[in-house]
Amino acid sequence: MEVVVLGAGVMGSALTIPLAENGNRVKLWGTEFDRRILEEIARTGIHPRLKVEIPKEVELFSPEEIGEAVKGSEIVVIGVLSAGVRSIARRIMPYLEEGTVVITIAKGLEDFEGKIYTMLEVVKSELPEEKRDSISLLAIAGPSLALELAKKVPTSVVFASKDLKAAKKCKEAFETDYYRPILSDDVIGVEICSALKNVYAISIGMCEGMKGQLDVETIDNTRGLLFTQAVKEMGKIAEALGGKSESAYGLAGIGDLETTARGGRNVMFGELLGSGLTVEEALEEMRRRGKGTVEGYGTLPSAYKLVLNLEREGKLQIAKDVPLLRELYLILKGNKPFTREVLQELVLNLTSD
Amino acid sequence: MEVVVLGAGVMGSALTIPLAENGNRVKLWGTEFDRRILEEIARTGIHPRLKVEIPKEVELFSPEEIGEAVKGSEIVVIGVLSAGVRSIARRIMPYLEEGTVVITIAKGLEDFEGKIYTMLEVVKSELPEEKRDSISLLAIAGPSLALELAKKVPTSVVFASKDLKAAKKCKEAFETDYYRPILSDDVIGVEICSALKNVYAISIGMCEGMKGQLDVETIDNTRGLLFTQAVKEMGKIAEALGGKSESAYGLAGIGDLETTARGGRNVMFGELLGSGLTVEEALEEMRRRGKGTVEGYGTLPSAYKLVLNLEREGKLQIAKDVPLLRELYLILKGNKPFTREVLQELVLNLTSD
Repeated sequence: MEVVVLGAGVMGSALTIPLAENGNRVKLWGTEFDRRILEEIARTGIHPRLKVEIPKEVELFSPEEIGEAVKGSEIVVIGVLSAGVRSIARRIMPYLEEGTVVITIAKGLEDFEGKIYTMLEVVKSELPEEKRDSISLLAIAGPSLALELAKKVPTSVVFASKDLKAAKKCKEAFETDYYRPILSDDVIGVEICSALKNVYAISIGMCEGMKGQLDVETIDNTRGLLFTQAVKEMGKIAEALGGKSESAYGLAGIGDLETTARGGRNVMFGELLGSGLTVEEALEEMRRRGKGTVEGYGTLPSAYKLVLNLEREGKLQIAKDVPLLRELYLILKGNKPFTREVLQELVLNLTSD
Repeated sequence: MEVVVLGAGVMGSALTIPLAENGNRVKLWGTEFDRRILEEIARTGIHPRLKVEIPKEVELFSPEEIGEAVKGSEIVVIGVLSAGVRSIARRIMPYLEEGTVVITIAKGLEDFEGKIYTMLEVVKSELPEEKRDSISLLAIAGPSLALELAKKVPTSVVFASKDLKAAKKCKEAFETDYYRPILSDDVIGVEICSALKNVYAISIGMCEGMKGQLDVETIDNTRGLLFTQAVKEMGKIAEALGGKSESAYGLAGIGDLETTARGGRNVMFGELLGSGLTVEEALEEMRRRGKGTVEGYGTLPSAYKLVLNLEREGKLQIAKDVPLLRELYLILKGNKPFTREVLQELVLNLTSD
């Protein structure tokens, strides 16, 4: 098959490894921000951030060559960060041919002109009327850190699509013995878990960061409670959106949260808050560490707007169904330090009848 | 209320803290093995393993005084390890009065005369006919490390009982702002998750231990997959036993597995296996470290016998419903090293259609 990956960041680039190994024709296109990466791969064969070899067969395309890269591709993977998905979707529209599958791998929500979009909804909203029926859409979700995939750590992900035939085709293109897609037709459920787990990972980090204030070595009891609550709330929101709570109990929910809550920026940001910093101070510290973009923090306002809309439509009750998300929103918006008392209050709130 | 805790180990002793704080009359009885602990508490006020103060109001009872300790108690907490529950249950029977609630906190299964018992089933089987209707039973499950509870880390647990009135009474006796019981009537579902999470925590440890063999810093993709699968299988077994899969998706399943998989003996034992040791070598190393008892390893044969029985009764298909438990059993029984190939095979097995 002919597959193009748009965006030469860590995740997009890592995906070229199983794709090339499977004998597909694989093209990797880089954005303006990826120029140095493309140059390095061309010169050394090694991806500078992944620190692994990109298969020689992968064809590299510069920012100017998006048309050439996309044309003729049966599968188009949008591999940029969530904030860039709409702009890339717009740019590729003229080149999409009938029968193409467009895949998103970014995990986030977009607040666009007052409406909240999942990543596939962003792509869908950019599809011209005449292409709606001939282009298939698929979201990849689940526990999949790029650096691990690039090192062929056994990884299983969810391929979510309304088009089962397209999903099977993609599975065939991607599947190796270390990269195992599982199919799902619950697109909205899978996508919402994917986006929200970053938000909930912040709460796990906040809990961990509280150890100092509580003068304890571990805080795993509270962590277990917050983790369970997070999964439950993702299931509730999935259902309110017409999806299935089972998606929260699968790889896109439990699995990805388990992996995400092991480290990374969302957890680090949460830990800073848990150690007593205000939101502004924590963001400043993240910038100082060169990790200014905290995905979950960016997603939180959209996530909250989404549940507000769902409550307005009578599909969900915020106080009853998503109290952890509400508290997170209030804490992060209120810009007050996350103290022992606030944690205690949160726990009381989550466990009251 | 008058409450007795039987067993002065870490968990039983930690529970006296919220109990005493609530103004109950609290009695702590020690087994033969607890003599030194009782002496230390009497002498210093501090529990030698918890390293925290046991409330002065807690009355201490020596191994010989089990009758005095139990008599008059409205709530009797059996706080010994799972292997000791039957013997304690037998010893207290003569002293149980009408209306008493007996609570188990041990997490395990017992293979007794060819039948597999949960902890409450052990107690139930020892109840004389005439006491069956007048004694209520309750199991405590969920993420609750004793050392954290003793330090008043916010903790939420499941109080599972068929007798809602008894459960409410216990909740009242135990509940503080840092110890929050949530009620459930799915006794079998909650108990089975409680026992099995120790078994599945071994698989998480095995995964972590594999990092060296795979030459990676983290193995969180595989961890996320195994974690998700473990929860799913606990839900399947709960259902096959007539319980609810929701219990696996709550504090007794997800919550306790999250907490248990953060450390402790089951994980340590798994890590040794993942680093390439055989079962015998790993057990030897655990003994050398003074951690010879690995709860999950002890529970595994009973857990496997249980699913074999369920398969025989047509209530579950082992290969389809609990492949991770099966692989764990085969690996631990086969006594072969856990290699990269075995992990790969396991992942293929879990993710095949």
